[in-house]
Amino acid sequence: LLFQVLHRANSFLFTQYKYLAAFTVIFAVVIFLFLGSVHRFSTASQPCQYTKGKTCKPALANAVFTTMAFLLGAVTSVVSGFLGMRIATFANARTTLEARRGIGAAFATAFRSGAVMGFLLSSLGLLVLYVAIKLFGLYYHDDWEGLYESITGYGLGGSSMALFGRVGGGIYTKAADVGADLVGKVERNIPEDDPRNPAVIADNVGDNVGDIAGMGSDLFGSYAESTCAALFVASISSFGADHDFAAVCYPLLISSAGLVVCLVTTLFATDFFKVKTVRGVAPALKLQLIISTALMTVAALVVTFAALPAKFTMFDFGEQKQVKNWHVFFCVAIGLWAGLAIGFTTEYFTSNAYSPVRDVADSCRTGAATNVIFGLALGYKSVIVPLLAIALSIYVSFTLASIYGIAIAALGMLSTVATGLAIDAYGPISDNAGGIAEMAGMSRRIRQRTDALDAAGNTTAAIGKGFAIGSAALVSLALFGAFVSRAGVTVINVLSPKVFAGMLAGGMLPYWFSAMTMKSVGSAALKMVEEVRRQFSTIPGLMEGRATPDYASCVRISTDASLREMMPPGALVLLAPLVVGTFFGVHTLAGLLAGALVSGVQVAISASNSGGAWDNAKKYIEAGASEHAKSLGPKGSEAHMAAVIGDTIGDPLKDTSGPSLNILIKLMAVESLVFAPFFAAHGGLIVN
Amino acid sequence: LLFQVLHRANSFLFTQYKYLAAFTVIFAVVIFLFLGSVHRFSTASQPCQYTKGKTCKPALANAVFTTMAFLLGAVTSVVSGFLGMRIATFANARTTLEARRGIGAAFATAFRSGAVMGFLLSSLGLLVLYVAIKLFGLYYHDDWEGLYESITGYGLGGSSMALFGRVGGGIYTKAADVGADLVGKVERNIPEDDPRNPAVIADNVGDNVGDIAGMGSDLFGSYAESTCAALFVASISSFGADHDFAAVCYPLLISSAGLVVCLVTTLFATDFFKVKTVRGVAPALKLQLIISTALMTVAALVVTFAALPAKFTMFDFGEQKQVKNWHVFFCVAIGLWAGLAIGFTTEYFTSNAYSPVRDVADSCRTGAATNVIFGLALGYKSVIVPLLAIALSIYVSFTLASIYGIAIAALGMLSTVATGLAIDAYGPISDNAGGIAEMAGMSRRIRQRTDALDAAGNTTAAIGKGFAIGSAALVSLALFGAFVSRAGVTVINVLSPKVFAGMLAGGMLPYWFSAMTMKSVGSAALKMVEEVRRQFSTIPGLMEGRATPDYASCVRISTDASLREMMPPGALVLLAPLVVGTFFGVHTLAGLLAGALVSGVQVAISASNSGGAWDNAKKYIEAGASEHAKSLGPKGSEAHMAAVIGDTIGDPLKDTSGPSLNILIKLMAVESLVFAPFFAAHGGLIVN
Repeated sequence: LLFQVLHRANSFLFTQYKYLAAFTVIFAVVIFLFLGSVHRFSTASQPCQYTKGKTCKPALANAVFTTMAFLLGAVTSVVSGFLGMRIATFANARTTLEARRGIGAAFATAFRSGAVMGFLLSSLGLLVLYVAIKLFGLYYHDDWEGLYESITGYGLGGSSMALFGRVGGGIYTKAADVGADLVGKVERNIPEDDPRNPAVIADNVGDNVGDIAGMGSDLFGSYAESTCAALFVASISSFGADHDFAAVCYPLLISSAGLVVCLVTTLFATDFFKVKTVRGVAPALKLQLIISTALMTVAALVVTFAALPAKFTMFDFGEQKQVKNWHVFFCVAIGLWAGLAIGFTTEYFTSNAYSPVRDVADSCRTGAATNVIFGLALGYKSVIVPLLAIALSIYVSFTLASIYGIAIAALGMLSTVATGLAIDAYGPISDNAGGIAEMAGMSRRIRQRTDALDAAGNTTAAIGKGFAIGSAALVSLALFGAFVSRAGVTVINVLSPKVFAGMLAGGMLPYWFSAMTMKSVGSAALKMVEEVRRQFSTIPGLMEGRATPDYASCVRISTDASLREMMPPGALVLLAPLVVGTFFGVHTLAGLLAGALVSGVQVAISASNSGGAWDNAKKYIEAGASEHAKSLGPKGSEAHMAAVIGDTIGDPLKDTSGPSLNILIKLMAVESLVFAPFFAAHGGLIVN
Repeated sequence: LLFQVLHRANSFLFTQYKYLAAFTVIFAVVIFLFLGSVHRFSTASQPCQYTKGKTCKPALANAVFTTMAFLLGAVTSVVSGFLGMRIATFANARTTLEARRGIGAAFATAFRSGAVMGFLLSSLGLLVLYVAIKLFGLYYHDDWEGLYESITGYGLGGSSMALFGRVGGGIYTKAADVGADLVGKVERNIPEDDPRNPAVIADNVGDNVGDIAGMGSDLFGSYAESTCAALFVASISSFGADHDFAAVCYPLLISSAGLVVCLVTTLFATDFFKVKTVRGVAPALKLQLIISTALMTVAALVVTFAALPAKFTMFDFGEQKQVKNWHVFFCVAIGLWAGLAIGFTTEYFTSNAYSPVRDVADSCRTGAATNVIFGLALGYKSVIVPLLAIALSIYVSFTLASIYGIAIAALGMLSTVATGLAIDAYGPISDNAGGIAEMAGMSRRIRQRTDALDAAGNTTAAIGKGFAIGSAALVSLALFGAFVSRAGVTVINVLSPKVFAGMLAGGMLPYWFSAMTMKSVGSAALKMVEEVRRQFSTIPGLMEGRATPDYASCVRISTDASLREMMPPGALVLLAPLVVGTFFGVHTLAGLLAGALVSGVQVAISASNSGGAWDNAKKYIEAGASEHAKSLGPKGSEAHMAAVIGDTIGDPLKDTSGPSLNILIKLMAVESLVFAPFFAAHGGLIVN
C-alpha cells in the first residue's frame, strides 16, 4: 500500500508536469514576444533607463534572458516540489517504523525529514539563483539594469508553477479528503485512513502532493520573488551605479545566514534537548521558532555591517533616498519579529489549548450552524493582529528604505523559512505515518503514537501558513514597488478614476478566485462521495474487509478534477494583469494589484484560520482531554457530528483557497514586474 | 398577540432610543469640541479656504452648526425608523386581513404599505435637509463654504443612528430567529411562527425592528450622505462661487424627481396592471425596478438641462475641472443603470428560479458541509458583476465630473430608492402577515397565501440589499473625495508608507467588525436556545398548546443582547477614523477609508448573497415545485436538514454583518468629512 501511495503520487505529479510543461512553453513564448516587442525586436543597444548617459543591452536581449530565467525558475520550482514530495513519502514510512521504538525516535525522524526538505528547498533556490546571476553576467557585463531585470523572470517561473501546484494539489487532496470523510466517517462510521475506504489512497497521495509539494513551492516562490525584487531595486540604486557586488548580493547573504541559523536551531530539537514525550513536541516546535528568530536577529546584524557600506542611496520612485546600513538591519529585524508575532497569533486562534478554539468546540453543543458561525467569526477576528503586524512592518521598512526595505523585511520574515518548512512538513509526515500504520494494520500503540505526533503538529502547520501569508503580503508589495519603478511611474494616486476602479476590481479577484477553487473542491468531492458510496454498495464484502476496494477509480477522480479545475483559476491570475496592463495601462494595473493585495490577505488569513480552528475543535472533542471536552464528546455524539461538518467546510478553505491566495497576490505582482517594460511602452490601449 | 408584538417592538425601540440619546449627546459634544478647537474657539471671522480674498464665518460657528445638523440628522433618522416600523406593524395586520379576500388584495396592501414607507422616508429626509439649508442660510448668508460644510453633520447624524439601528436590530432579530429555529424547527419539529414557541414574539418583533427600521434608516442615511457630499463639492465649485442656488440644489432636484417617478411607477403595480396570482408577484416587482429606472432616466435628462448651466467647473482635488451639463446627466444615468444591473445580478444569484441556488440546493444531498461550501463559493462569485458595475460607474462618473460625478452617480442609483424601499419592505410585511395568521390560528388557506407572497418577496429583499451596498460604495467614495478635498489634500499616493499601511489596516476593519457582530448573534442565539429548551422542558403542557410560554423572557434576552452588543462594533466604527486621523493624520486616514471600502464592499455583497441563497435553497426544497426539488425534499429529509443548517448560518451573514458593513464604510467616510477641518489643522500627532 505504501508503494501504491508513492506510485500514485508520482504518476499524478508526472501527469501534472506534462500539463505544466505545455503551459510553460506557451507562456515562455508570450514573455518573449511581449518583452521583445518593447523596442520592436531591435538588436541595437539602448540608452539605460536609470543610469544616465550609458548604453544598456537591447530589450530583445532582456526578453531572451527573462524567458530563460522564467524557464529556470519553473524547472527549479517543479524539482523542489518533487524532491520535497519524495523525501516526505520516504519519511512517512520511516516515521511509522521508528514509532515502534517510541515517541522520541519518531519525532526526531519526522522533524529531521522536514528539516532536510526545508534546507534542500531553500539552498536549491539560492544556488540556482546565484549561478544564474553569474552566468547571465557573462553576457551583461556591467549592464546591471538589464541583468537584474531579466532575473525577475526567475521569480515568475517559480511562482507560476507554485500556483498550479497549490491549486491542483489543493483540489486533489481536498476532493479526496472531503469525499473520504463524508462517506467513511459520517455515513459508514469507519476510522480515518481505514484501508476499506476506497478513497484512502487518493487521500494519502493528496496529503503529499498538496500539503508538502504545494507548500514547498509556495515558500520557494516567495523566497525567489523577494530576492528578485530586492536585487532589482538594488541594481538601480547606488549599489548598481557603484557596481558593489557584495552589497547587491546582500539579499542572498541574508538568506544564506538564515540557512546556517536554521541548521543550528534544528540541533536544539533533535540533539541538545531531545523530545521524549508527546507533551514536549509542541513546546519544542514553538521553541524552534523563537530560537531561530533570536539567532537570526544577531546574524542579520553581523551580515548587515559586514556587507553593506555605512551610507548609500536607494531608488525611491524617481528619487534616490539616503539609507544607512543600520536602517536595513531594522528592516530585516521587523520582518523577522512580525513573522513571529503572526505565527503566535495564528497559534492562539487555531490551537485547542486556548479559548478561541474551545469556544468554537463549545458552540457545537447547539449544532453545526452555530459551529460554523463561531468559526467564521473566529477567522475574521484572527486577521486583526497579523494585519497590524504587516502594516507596521510595511510602515517601518518602507519609511527607512523604500521598496528595498520592504523586500528586505520580506526576506527577514523568510530567512527562517527552513525552520518554518521543517515545522510545517512535520505535520503531514506524522499524519501520513499514522495513515500507513492504519493501512498496514500495525498495532494500536503505534497508531496512538503517530496520532499524538500529528495532533502536536496540527497547530504548527497553521503557523507555517501564517508565515506564508505574512511574507506573501510583504513580497507582493515589494514586487509592486519594483513594478511601479520599472514602469517609470512615481505616483499612484488613489484619487484618480483609473486607479480607484482598478482597486475595486482587484479587491474582487481573490473572491472570484476562491469561488472557483471552492466550487471545484465541492464538485469533485460530490463525485468522490458518489463513487465511494457506489463501491460500498456494489462490491460485496467490502465493509467486512474481505474485498479490496477499487482505489484507482478514486485516484482518477481526484486527478481529473485537479488537472481540469486548476486551469480556470490559473488563467484568471495570469491573464488579469496582462489584460489590465495591456488595455488599461500601468495606473489601473497598479490599482488592481493594490486592491488584490489589500483584500486577498484578509481572505487568506481568515480562511486558513477558520479552517484550522474547526479542525482542532473537532480534534479537541475527539481527544476528550478535559472535563469540558468530555462533556461534548465522545466520537459520534451530536456535538462531534457538528464539529465534523465544520472541519469538512474548513478543508477547502484552509488547504485550497486560502493558501492559493498567497500565490495569487504574489504572482500577479511578479508578472506585472516582468511585463513592466511592455506595459510602460505599449500599455493602456483603451484608456490612456 | 399582534398587540404584544407592537408593544414589545415599541418598548424595545424606546429602550434603544434612551441609549442612542445618551450617545448622541456625548458625540455632539465631541463634534463641537473637535471642530471648535480648529481655530482655538476663536469667534473672529477667517479668510475662506477656497474662495480667495473673502472672509468666511469662524470655525466656532461651523462647529455649532455642524453639531446642530448632526442632532437634526440623528433625530430625523430615528423618526424615520420609528415611523417605518409603525407603518409596517399595522401593514402586517391589514395584509393578513386582506389575505382573506385573495392574493391580489393582499399583495396590493402589502406593496402599498411598503410604498407609503418608501415615500415617507425619502420625502422626510429631503424636506428636513431643505429646511435646514434655508435656516442655516439665515446665519451664513453668502458664506456657502461654511454652510455646506456644516450641513455634512446631517449625514453623520443620520448614518450613526442607522449603524446602531442596523447592528442592534440585526442582533435582536437574528438571535431570536436562530434561537427559535434551532429548537422549534430542528429539535421540536413545530412550524415556524408557532405560538407554542417561546421565542416567536421576539422573532416577530425582530423582523420589524431589524429588517424594516434598519433598512429604512440605512437607505435614508445613504441618501442624506450622498446629498451632503454633492452639496459640499458644489459649494466649493463654480456653483458656489456664482451663488447659483438652483444649480447647487441639483442633488435635491434629482431626488425630488425620483420621488415623482416612483409614485407614478407604483401605480403600475397597484392600479394599471393589477396582480391577481402569486406567479404575477415577482414579475410585477421586477417590472417596478425597470419602469422606475427607465422613467427616471428621462426625468434626469429634463432636470439636468433645466437646472444646470451648459458649462461650469467642479472642484477636482485642488483644480477646477470643466464640466458640461450632459456629463452630469451621464453620471446620473450610469448610477441608475448600474443599480439595476446589481439588482438583477443579486436576483440571479439568490433566486431559486436560477441554477446557482439550485446547485446549492442540490449539494444538500451530501450534507450540510457541501451545502456551506457551495453557498460560500456562490457568495464569492456573486461579487464579480456588482464590483465591475461599481468600478465602471466610478470610472465614468469620476472621469466626467470628479467627486461631484460620483456623488451624483450615487444619487442616481438612489433616486429610485422609494421603489426599492417599497419592494424591500414588502417582503417582511408579508412574512409577518403570515406570522400573525399562524399565531392567531387563522385558516390554512390564508397562511398559504401569505407564504406565497413571502416567497415572492424573498428575492426582492435581496435586490434591495444589493442596491443598498452598491449605493453605499459610491456614496462612501464621494464622501471620501469630499473629505480629502476638505482636508486640502490633492494626492493620496499608494506608494507611500503612511497610505499603504492605512489601506491594509482599513481592509481589516470590515473583518473585525463582522467578527464582533457574528459572534454577538451566535452567543445571543446560544442563550436563546437554552431558554427555549428550558421552557419546553419545565413548563408542563407547552408542547400540547395547553400552557402559554413565557414570551417576555425571550424578548428580554434579545433586547439585552442587542443593546449590550451593539456598543463594541459601534465604537470600532466611530473611533477608528477619529483615532487614526488624530494620531496618524489625513493620509493614513485616507488609506484607511480606501482599504475599508475596497475590502468591505466584497465582504458585504458575498455575505448577503450567500445568506440569501441558503435561505432560498431551503425554501426551494420545502416548496418541492419541480421534480428535482421533490427528489431533495420533503421537509425533514436529510437534504432539508442540511439546508436548514445553511439557512441558519446565513442569517447573521445576510441580516446582521453584511448590511451593517454598508453603514461601516459610509459612516467612517462621513465622519472623516465632518472632522476633516480638525484633522487638517491638528491631525497626525504621531506621524506627520
